[in-house]
Amino acid sequence: MIKLTEPTLLLDKAKCLKNIEFIVEKAKKQNITLRPHFKTHQSHEIGRWFRHLGVEKITASSLKMAEYFAEDGWQDVTVAFPVNVHEIERINSLAEKIKLNLLVVAPETIEKLAKDLKFPVNIFIEIDSGDHRTGLNPDDFENIDRILAEINRFELLTFKGFLTHAGHSYGVRGDKEELAKIHRESVSLVAPLKAKYSAQYSYLTISYGDTPNCSVMEDFTGLDEIRPGNLVFYDVVQTEIGSCTLDQIAVAMACPVVAKNPDRNEIVIYGGAVHLSKDSMIMPNGAKSFGKVVNLTEKGWETDETGAYLKSLSQEHGVISAPDEFFEKVQLGDFFGVLPIHSCLMVDLNSSYLTLEGEKISKFRFYE
Amino acid sequence: MIKLTEPTLLLDKAKCLKNIEFIVEKAKKQNITLRPHFKTHQSHEIGRWFRHLGVEKITASSLKMAEYFAEDGWQDVTVAFPVNVHEIERINSLAEKIKLNLLVVAPETIEKLAKDLKFPVNIFIEIDSGDHRTGLNPDDFENIDRILAEINRFELLTFKGFLTHAGHSYGVRGDKEELAKIHRESVSLVAPLKAKYSAQYSYLTISYGDTPNCSVMEDFTGLDEIRPGNLVFYDVVQTEIGSCTLDQIAVAMACPVVAKNPDRNEIVIYGGAVHLSKDSMIMPNGAKSFGKVVNLTEKGWETDETGAYLKSLSQEHGVISAPDEFFEKVQLGDFFGVLPIHSCLMVDLNSSYLTLEGEKISKFRFYE
Repeated sequence: MIKLTEPTLLLDKAKCLKNIEFIVEKAKKQNITLRPHFKTHQSHEIGRWFRHLGVEKITASSLKMAEYFAEDGWQDVTVAFPVNVHEIERINSLAEKIKLNLLVVAPETIEKLAKDLKFPVNIFIEIDSGDHRTGLNPDDFENIDRILAEINRFELLTFKGFLTHAGHSYGVRGDKEELAKIHRESVSLVAPLKAKYSAQYSYLTISYGDTPNCSVMEDFTGLDEIRPGNLVFYDVVQTEIGSCTLDQIAVAMACPVVAKNPDRNEIVIYGGAVHLSKDSMIMPNGAKSFGKVVNLTEKGWETDETGAYLKSLSQEHGVISAPDEFFEKVQLGDFFGVLPIHSCLMVDLNSSYLTLEGEKISKFRFYE
Repeated sequence: MIKLTEPTLLLDKAKCLKNIEFIVEKAKKQNITLRPHFKTHQSHEIGRWFRHLGVEKITASSLKMAEYFAEDGWQDVTVAFPVNVHEIERINSLAEKIKLNLLVVAPETIEKLAKDLKFPVNIFIEIDSGDHRTGLNPDDFENIDRILAEINRFELLTFKGFLTHAGHSYGVRGDKEELAKIHRESVSLVAPLKAKYSAQYSYLTISYGDTPNCSVMEDFTGLDEIRPGNLVFYDVVQTEIGSCTLDQIAVAMACPVVAKNPDRNEIVIYGGAVHLSKDSMIMPNGAKSFGKVVNLTEKGWETDETGAYLKSLSQEHGVISAPDEFFEKVQLGDFFGVLPIHSCLMVDLNSSYLTLEGEKISKFRFYE
């Protein structure tokens, strides 16, 4: 095993490649375009693993992130976040070089965007298909039509289609029927927009979310592209939703034990909010968990149940609740793996990955 | 006002200096050493503002952070985290150059530490004075004596004193009596250790925590040094505890509005978990808040109540719950300030500050 001295972000490349191959194969089989979201891995190197399998279009969650990937040759990028017109310089710089798709949720944005725009960009209108975070209601034809009318005023703007993120699928806990219902309803809300606007716009794209649906569902009729991101690594939340098994989680934080408290059967690790993020989840047994503790091995980590999990986090301290048997065996200095509640946030905190073979893989950072 | 285009960490230097002056003056007046914790600001520049006022000793939360500050001339650093012996190379590198104080919570650590140690280090024993996170019970003389016996075996190790962090003060909500009780009890648990061990060790230091107690309490009899960190900036949690007023909070994230949803009186900002952290707090009215929304001005931000707060965060999206009046006035593209629930975590996510005068101040990053 690679030499560990401090909290380290481990990447199981084999598991990650399997996750990537899974979705690439599914998209091919279902005859739908895969435009994966790169906000989970945020890495040139990992992006290339997608490209080697034929992926040509991607999604990013910020213009800065889009720039990072454009630097590595990605030519078709959707920034799936309501466009921040203040960043017009960055928008122009990108639009000059690549096919850039921006997201719009309000008519007044179009003129502001067009004002200092110098190069062509494509526009997706975001539709709320049940997540109730951002996006127009699918029957808000008044605003949809106003946005389209505004787009038509400007030669540099082209309407590309409707985009939605069924993020409410994250509320599912293992119930495949419930997930299927969410999928059916979300698709039924957004897919009809294609027929409604196809007279005017013959090449419309209906762009669809999210890791749970893309992992579990097979029928994507009515949709043109899918943008799952989290599934490159998965995490504990996805396991509880039913998107994957524990074995598919491809990242873990390796953290050393720094204290043991016999009074409380608690183990303290060097691994806190600044290494893991403060995302937590209520587990099936009702306990609030900040991460699942597993044993590290020569080849990575086991997913056998240890019964140990992170019950609280401070800035650097992580407190593990441990069953007796686990507690007895632990020595100060031992390293354990923490499977993340939410891999996107844990990875975002870091500057690089260490593969199990000891290879360092760098990534994008929003704040440099 | 400085030109803003994206989520930006703003620092009100005047407010920050006032907070620093406040604690420097109090420590002088109470005749106690100030050894401030630098894990909140993590910056050479801000560290110098302390040094200019006579501070010579500091606290860090990792050996990497200690190295960062040693590079800027800090010669006396306590790493207030149970020592991670795997980092022996870093320990030696630091101990060769500066006065390094390490924290120990178990006897078996001493021999492991001494094994490859090449230069002198000082040892503090951590005592649990009610926080129940790390540290020996104050009456666990068996383990305290075992640690001392172990320290005495090794010439390079010197016992320096007892250190505690009364982190349970963070549970207080404005009740000064309750805070005073916590302070009295914590001090009564740790201060007597000095008398008990002063026969053997005449220069023992009793080192004490935390921002709430250090901000509000005046009587530090029995203690030799205080290590508050958060008070350099304060935050919403500290305001609710009663450590400070809203006006003393010296950092805020400036975030632009990217969407408005009239159906739900919700405003979406470009400002999510990756900019703010996912620390939240239950406010007095029962609502869960991820940050307090305030108006920005030419000179910084107002602390007048807007009634608006962040009700949820995704990776980049921040959803604001807004009262009607506030909602009506907001335009897409407007910037607002978000006062952090927990300033340490919000700042840790960033690579630099922008002062209100437009000056960029860089900071340490654990993962480079």
